[in-house]
Amino acid sequence: MIKTTILRERKPRLKNPVMIEGLPGVGHVGKLVAEHMVEELGAKKVLEIYSPHFPPQVIVEDDGTIRLVKNEVYAYKSKGKHDLLILVGDHQSTSNEGHYELCGVFLDIAQEFNVKRIYALGGYGVGQLVETESVLGAANNIELVKELQGYGVEFRANEPGGGIVGASGLLLGLGALRGIDAACLMGVTSGYLVDPKSAQAVLKVLCKILEIEVDMQALEERASEMEKIVAKLREMEESKAPATSEEDLRYIG
Amino acid sequence: MIKTTILRERKPRLKNPVMIEGLPGVGHVGKLVAEHMVEELGAKKVLEIYSPHFPPQVIVEDDGTIRLVKNEVYAYKSKGKHDLLILVGDHQSTSNEGHYELCGVFLDIAQEFNVKRIYALGGYGVGQLVETESVLGAANNIELVKELQGYGVEFRANEPGGGIVGASGLLLGLGALRGIDAACLMGVTSGYLVDPKSAQAVLKVLCKILEIEVDMQALEERASEMEKIVAKLREMEESKAPATSEEDLRYIG
Amino acid sequence: MIKTTILRERKPRLKNPVMIEGLPGVGHVGKLVAEHMVEELGAKKVLEIYSPHFPPQVIVEDDGTIRLVKNEVYAYKSKGKHDLLILVGDHQSTSNEGHYELCGVFLDIAQEFNVKRIYALGGYGVGQLVETESVLGAANNIELVKELQGYGVEFRANEPGGGIVGASGLLLGLGALRGIDAACLMGVTSGYLVDPKSAQAVLKVLCKILEIEVDMQALEERASEMEKIVAKLREMEESKAPATSEEDLRYIG
Amino acid sequence: MIKTTILRERKPRLKNPVMIEGLPGVGHVGKLVAEHMVEELGAKKVLEIYSPHFPPQVIVEDDGTIRLVKNEVYAYKSKGKHDLLILVGDHQSTSNEGHYELCGVFLDIAQEFNVKRIYALGGYGVGQLVETESVLGAANNIELVKELQGYGVEFRANEPGGGIVGASGLLLGLGALRGIDAACLMGVTSGYLVDPKSAQAVLKVLCKILEIEVDMQALEERASEMEKIVAKLREMEESKAPATSEEDLRYIG
Repeated sequence: MIKTTILRERKPRLKNPVMIEGLPGVGHVGKLVAEHMVEELGAKKVLEIYSPHFPPQVIVEDDGTIRLVKNEVYAYKSKGKHDLLILVGDHQSTSNEGHYELCGVFLDIAQEFNVKRIYALGGYGVGQLVETESVLGAANNIELVKELQGYGVEFRANEPGGGIVGASGLLLGLGALRGIDAACLMGVTSGYLVDPKSAQAVLKVLCKILEIEVDMQALEERASEMEKIVAKLREMEESKAPATSEEDLRYIG
Repeated sequence: MIKTTILRERKPRLKNPVMIEGLPGVGHVGKLVAEHMVEELGAKKVLEIYSPHFPPQVIVEDDGTIRLVKNEVYAYKSKGKHDLLILVGDHQSTSNEGHYELCGVFLDIAQEFNVKRIYALGGYGVGQLVETESVLGAANNIELVKELQGYGVEFRANEPGGGIVGASGLLLGLGALRGIDAACLMGVTSGYLVDPKSAQAVLKVLCKILEIEVDMQALEERASEMEKIVAKLREMEESKAPATSEEDLRYIG
Repeated sequence: MIKTTILRERKPRLKNPVMIEGLPGVGHVGKLVAEHMVEELGAKKVLEIYSPHFPPQVIVEDDGTIRLVKNEVYAYKSKGKHDLLILVGDHQSTSNEGHYELCGVFLDIAQEFNVKRIYALGGYGVGQLVETESVLGAANNIELVKELQGYGVEFRANEPGGGIVGASGLLLGLGALRGIDAACLMGVTSGYLVDPKSAQAVLKVLCKILEIEVDMQALEERASEMEKIVAKLREMEESKAPATSEEDLRYIG
Repeated sequence: MIKTTILRERKPRLKNPVMIEGLPGVGHVGKLVAEHMVEELGAKKVLEIYSPHFPPQVIVEDDGTIRLVKNEVYAYKSKGKHDLLILVGDHQSTSNEGHYELCGVFLDIAQEFNVKRIYALGGYGVGQLVETESVLGAANNIELVKELQGYGVEFRANEPGGGIVGASGLLLGLGALRGIDAACLMGVTSGYLVDPKSAQAVLKVLCKILEIEVDMQALEERASEMEKIVAKLREMEESKAPATSEEDLRYIG
């Protein structure tokens, strides 16, 4: 395989579809939200994407079978205004050039389904444990910024300072060049841990925007498990020098 | 040379051939088994594979001549049910994209010979010296998992945790996309040393599966030499701090 | 997007145009000069360049909107002898091969507008704070060296010792192969800080060469702000060991 | 420039030409020999090779002009049996794949001139200061090994242990695939310093093989200068701990 390859499973007819991207990233926030939506909404798989820009790796499942790392698109036929195309996956591109190629493929798929708007989900790592829920936004046009402010999404001048890197960033940037409205919704998170609580915050905003309902219990359970881990880490932190405790946090989740 | 190139030496007619892959990897377990099989069975070279994805390197032989690093496929005409195609080599790809391209080439060769099953051999590094022989498996379909359990291959939920990376992994993953049954047989090993004992364990299982016999004496001799080295290392370990002794193990073999 | 892509906004007719390159580099000297010229001269955007050789990144603006990282070319219609084409941007190529490809694109644009001369602007990092203003030069033919010496540009045997790397270097080198005169003007700078003072030195020389006037007030203000920061750093330096103070300088600007 | 490009300056008719490769490498031994031959023999430039696989860099000359990094081939019309094609240059490829592509280009050139034999010159770094002159060899067929032994070239089983990497290695390996005899002559050297004395040893052997004479005075002068530096380093070494003295050697030349 020397080219990115799409395997199609079904070709649904979708009504005013919106694309949701939740690939792995900071705190796995986007991935948690998108995979939770696929599961709770019972979305159907539309296609699989394999690429030499992913790591040369298979994942071993519980039953001893393997599957090649991939990205997938699921479709959800909604009772509301917008059907959904949900992009999830094991990995993002391992190379810079590959990010550009793969985002081109994602946008080709979006255009094939006549998608007019994309929400790229992610986390915004602030480097310390986060107490309050907040969702930071960025968008590829000013009208979309204003619309999202109405849903409580925060916009801060020049934040994130380093810009937005990877699939989420490029969907907005390359999307603009193709005339597709796209916004990034970033759950504020420490950046050290997988953060289902931050994922809940993003999902709440997204449900309001899309006028859909998604059961959050599974996400809440994972969040409260993680809370217990964090509580233990804090205890450990109090009996330690601050420099080392941060190190401890860095590899958990 | 800007493309992967195949040099053909012979084109044998093979009966229900099974492909065995033993390229370099953890503990060189796969490489030891496959090269031992080529030698003991007197398999004949079918073709050589050269690629810009290998390191730009030649190997110097005992007599002062060199040879370009390569992968090779050997054929063994068996008296049993299956002839064998054995893939061995000096290196795997040096880049992610190259792994995908080379595995595509390997699978093209498999399909050319009408191969219906592939065994990818490797090691599973557990980070400490291993006492008991065991062979961990993974396969690209559940029937094959069950079949291999019958031969004593162990399957553990989500092990290896990091998945299977490189040629072995991709042969299973990309093989599945082409409808070829493929399993990985991984000798459990420390991961610090070339491990002929673990190679013996893998070879025993493989011989049972393939219903062939392979003389193991050469492998046994290498294993007992290595046992002596390990014994010395343990002595050294006992007279040292544990942290440094692990360092010592890391570069032997 | 798998290829470098040019989006054209206007196609001006230019009189004996000279190309000025000011992409990010040492001390951001070239970038400061070129962006200052675009602003002060009111140059009009001619085209945008997007490329998979740039990082997969969008930049977040003050208003919450994003823009994909890019390079841009602006045109200035001068009352003097030469109109200007000014090349600015967020990033240079992230790969070696990409540098060659992008410089080929820049030179295609130069030739499309019949550019006969290119000035590549940059900084020359000397590893310590610099007291006096000086501009080091290099050119792709000896006549241009002599001409620039007449404007006070310094040429030192084998300096910079490591040659000139990136877009500036390649515009001279690949420019020579296409028969385009090209010189590099390098403001001598510490290399640790963004250096608007060094940028002023380069701009003064460039204005003399091009026989144009550019208001320098904005650059002066940035320079005097930076002077204050440097003064503070020096105070800190005096109360510290020299080894650590250099470390401090390394990440400011 | 997105492809490797050849600029031809002349097309000489050559008599039984032998190709000599002396690109930068360990101790710059090969480069010293080949550049010395070009100069002393007054060889004429045949062609220049530019490539995106070289660093994106220009070199600044004494007079302030620059030149793009490149490889060059020179021709020498000998009174003896063989004319020479001498390959020299500033850099080797920066990527693995680029090494394969560039060596393909070198071999195309060799075949264009009907070259039947290649000598790839280099250094063999042994990690400590070397007292006696010796030249280690490797060749792409056993007849050539025997022939070179007659000239005092040493062949040691499995040395160099890590094989031969880069242009020298690939010229032998890829040369064999094209049926061109090729040998590597490696001056034994510390690997820490540019080593004109080791270059002399290689040149002496090469002159005997080619039945030509090359004045060695310039190389002798450089060697005796370097001897003085080494003597000073040894003095320093004696008044220091051995571990640090090796560090000092590492960056000189």
